[in-house]
Amino acid sequence: MSFIDQLKWTSEGLIPAIVQDHRTGRVLMMAWMNRASLEKTVETRRTWFWSRSRGKFWMKGESSGHVQVVHDIAFDCDGDTLLIQVEQTGAACHEGYRSCFFRSIEGSGETVRVSEAQLETPEAIYGRK
Amino acid sequence: MSFIDQLKWTSEGLIPAIVQDHRTGRVLMMAWMNRASLEKTVETRRTWFWSRSRGKFWMKGESSGHVQVVHDIAFDCDGDTLLIQVEQTGAACHEGYRSCFFRSIEGSGETVRVSEAQLETPEAIYGRK
Repeated sequence: MSFIDQLKWTSEGLIPAIVQDHRTGRVLMMAWMNRASLEKTVETRRTWFWSRSRGKFWMKGESSGHVQVVHDIAFDCDGDTLLIQVEQTGAACHEGYRSCFFRSIEGSGETVRVSEAQLETPEAIYGRK
Repeated sequence: MSFIDQLKWTSEGLIPAIVQDHRTGRVLMMAWMNRASLEKTVETRRTWFWSRSRGKFWMKGESSGHVQVVHDIAFDCDGDTLLIQVEQTGAACHEGYRSCFFRSIEGSGETVRVSEAQLETPEAIYGRK
């Protein structure tokens, strides 16, 4: 039996996947997988997701070139969340930051600061294809 | 305007919150917050969540003593996921592991290995109150 049979999926058949840089520990992004995208992730060692907004199956990096090579796949005690360790090429964020979590709050949240440098502009990432 | 007004919530008024150890980078758990639990997290610098299964507002550590002191709150580019850096007392997982993600798959997922030592048994954690 595959571990996939032990997982709990939402009513839409999805599970959230946290993606972490396997070397630095930086959390890069969170996205949703369905069963087919998880199976493809396990098989190809690249990350595949299900886009809820676009209703589309996609491989991370397919348009940006910023692929994620999978090093480890873990799941939590409730079997309803995945944690995937990857080697990230370039920026994980479509806004050109290494991590999608590049904004942190100050104090009670009236102010927000950018916590890391932008590696590339979105135009440079998506304009080059 | 607070950053909270920039966030996107599910149709149930929730947002997923990834919790990470601020020193080691270990991802400890993922749980859901509603607006009130996030406001209380910002105000008290302890993590508060909304339990979907129990329909209940809860502070992490309220029954186990394993509280999380908040060091940083970040949100992603889409404004639909939080990343919270904490100082974790004891085990984050109710099964007694430091992280809820204590199981990783081997190969194509027929085998699962436990990736970290259990710090305490659940009986030791929840029997002591």
